Amino acid sequence: MHSDLITLTTDFGTASPYVAAMKGVILSIAPHVRILDLSHDIPAQDIWHGAFFLAGCVPYFPPEAVHVVVVDPGVGTERRLLYTEIGPHRLILPDNGLATLLLRRFPLRRAFQILEPRYRLPVVSNTFHGRDILGPAAAHVALGIEPAHLGPQVHDPYRLPVPEPQVGETIRGKVIFVDGFGNLITNIEQSLLEQAGMDPKAGRVPVVLIAARRIARWVRTYGEAKPGELVALISSSGYLEIAEVQGSAARTLSAGRGTPVEVSLENRTNGI
Amino acid sequence: MHSDLITLTTDFGTASPYVAAMKGVILSIAPHVRILDLSHDIPAQDIWHGAFFLAGCVPYFPPEAVHVVVVDPGVGTERRLLYTEIGPHRLILPDNGLATLLLRRFPLRRAFQILEPRYRLPVVSNTFHGRDILGPAAAHVALGIEPAHLGPQVHDPYRLPVPEPQVGETIRGKVIFVDGFGNLITNIEQSLLEQAGMDPKAGRVPVVLIAARRIARWVRTYGEAKPGELVALISSSGYLEIAEVQGSAARTLSAGRGTPVEVSLENRTNGI
Amino acid sequence: MHSDLITLTTDFGTASPYVAAMKGVILSIAPHVRILDLSHDIPAQDIWHGAFFLAGCVPYFPPEAVHVVVVDPGVGTERRLLYTEIGPHRLILPDNGLATLLLRRFPLRRAFQILEPRYRLPVVSNTFHGRDILGPAAAHVALGIEPAHLGPQVHDPYRLPVPEPQVGETIRGKVIFVDGFGNLITNIEQSLLEQAGMDPKAGRVPVVLIAARRIARWVRTYGEAKPGELVALISSSGYLEIAEVQGSAARTLSAGRGTPVEVSLENRTNGI
Repeated sequence: MHSDLITLTTDFGTASPYVAAMKGVILSIAPHVRILDLSHDIPAQDIWHGAFFLAGCVPYFPPEAVHVVVVDPGVGTERRLLYTEIGPHRLILPDNGLATLLLRRFPLRRAFQILEPRYRLPVVSNTFHGRDILGPAAAHVALGIEPAHLGPQVHDPYRLPVPEPQVGETIRGKVIFVDGFGNLITNIEQSLLEQAGMDPKAGRVPVVLIAARRIARWVRTYGEAKPGELVALISSSGYLEIAEVQGSAARTLSAGRGTPVEVSLENRTNGI
Repeated sequence: MHSDLITLTTDFGTASPYVAAMKGVILSIAPHVRILDLSHDIPAQDIWHGAFFLAGCVPYFPPEAVHVVVVDPGVGTERRLLYTEIGPHRLILPDNGLATLLLRRFPLRRAFQILEPRYRLPVVSNTFHGRDILGPAAAHVALGIEPAHLGPQVHDPYRLPVPEPQVGETIRGKVIFVDGFGNLITNIEQSLLEQAGMDPKAGRVPVVLIAARRIARWVRTYGEAKPGELVALISSSGYLEIAEVQGSAARTLSAGRGTPVEVSLENRTNGI
Repeated sequence: MHSDLITLTTDFGTASPYVAAMKGVILSIAPHVRILDLSHDIPAQDIWHGAFFLAGCVPYFPPEAVHVVVVDPGVGTERRLLYTEIGPHRLILPDNGLATLLLRRFPLRRAFQILEPRYRLPVVSNTFHGRDILGPAAAHVALGIEPAHLGPQVHDPYRLPVPEPQVGETIRGKVIFVDGFGNLITNIEQSLLEQAGMDPKAGRVPVVLIAARRIARWVRTYGEAKPGELVALISSSGYLEIAEVQGSAARTLSAGRGTPVEVSLENRTNGI
């Protein structure tokens, strides 16, 4: 399928010429494409961050887009480079777990290892496959080549272990992402809270324990509480989120990815 | 009016998937548009910064552009979301004062509250209206829908109070913006200096007092003084600016938004 | 030559409205162009950084692109503004050395000083020529004007002095660029190591001395060594690079641009 839209997600930053070099390579092969930056601020070599990032944006794109993702600590080693079709979406990325969370939401339709020399730069460096292999492959895919020509089919893309919440009398989860506002996104899905019978409207209030703080203020959105207040809410991605109104919960709580979060029921009659 | 150009200005940063999700939503509705990033580095929830930013760039755009702005500490509360026509420019933004400075330069031609469910995502979150309402509205406007169909007309967009300089024997103003070089832009317009009879060419030298420092070196541009020197000049937006040549006046003076600035006349014959 | 692609490289950051204003100006003159951000994170007024950046990405672009570069500490002084054709590439930039490294790789085909008032904004500020002169010139070039109409021909663009490695029993060079991962790129080219008879495969191992550390671990790519290890390798641009695997060599070694680097031969039989 021909495309005129290639998106870029990397951990390169833009003070170095790496992203710009990729753009030049892509446009040299496929001069017609629109290149769209998704992010170049994925923390260096942070594959999990990249996986969360992709799960939070790729589903919103039209299938036409070709997404190139370069967070690649294993560049030049034996890790594979992949063309993947995940649900309706097409991604070109190293096989290091970046697609983990997308693959929980969409089936893997097909994937190919990118090996065909025709679809690379003539000289391939050992340390910059974004420029020399992934970018060119995306440009050729945008031009409409048959993806099966990129290389052999792959059935087992690597997946990162995903921390699952433990559900008992309390729900024990973790912070899995900190956004740019310092909001703490956890792995505790809204449905899990509902299954546990938590229902603020009925006085069955979920109470959150995090970083030795007890958070019982449950809001629909930030502006319902006062600046500086710590609140619990359902994030725009459907997960339990801890936020500080007009502040940074991450900073205030010294919390980050991996910080344990506990949710339990408390009865309003207990005098909250 | 049909458009193929949507610009984005947010305080999201790009390490989180929020901006990318908005781009996907827009392209899913209006696949033909060019999306242009203006900034995702507006400081978190800093409406004034956003207002100054917009006043410094939107006037340079062709009327064709549809500008989406998301600096929205009140997301999900009762603040309105607006489609606005301000002079020849079209902006889609929360009604929290972001248009304040543009509205001092251009008349409000018309504005509508964005309420029509047809022009939103089917499910609207409480915390991410950029993705769920503002982005989709912009995409539909770019497709050429009649803006009046978005919702009821609005005549009173919210405006931030704007600090005005006090003019007497001296002019008392404030720093209202610090740019990326650490240059301090004040609210003292060039015309005000002229009205006060300040005229460096005639030896009537305006002297600036800021952060307990006296700055009498007045230049047309940075390169006229030596690296490290503190200078006063007229900024590219027409306001009094305090700069350090090849350095950061903000850092050197520990000055920032709100720092008082005083300008008074001094006679060259006084031995400056 | 008509073009629909203008790239932007600046040291403005994007928290200030400067880059966005340039985009507006360009689109007002040449509404059809695709604007592509290369970087707005060149460190403030760091011409050398800009020169290295351009040498690392411009060669990958198709000749169609018009590259606008604004790192301009001398804005408003007598430094010239240039339209240049360097090899097949077209750049519009201040004449302050930004093209130095590109000019070592490609011949200067022709250059013109940008003086023609027709191709500027009607009012030109003293401190923002990116918006008032360079952006408009690029837009007019993209529209297909004859570049010779911009102003008089220039034969002697300014070039920065380039630090050359000294070659004797040891090779003495310098770090000339630190990338976003903290990798240290030196001015010691791969061919120089080969000329000096260094050949790891034959046991003739180049040993690197930097910041009082001796680095003898030579890899093809980062993933060949353990996280935290300091390694030497050939960068994707063909120069000796010092890296810390999954870390920052710049931070670990407190090294940066200008840090001396020494390479000498050591015999494997010495018990390395």
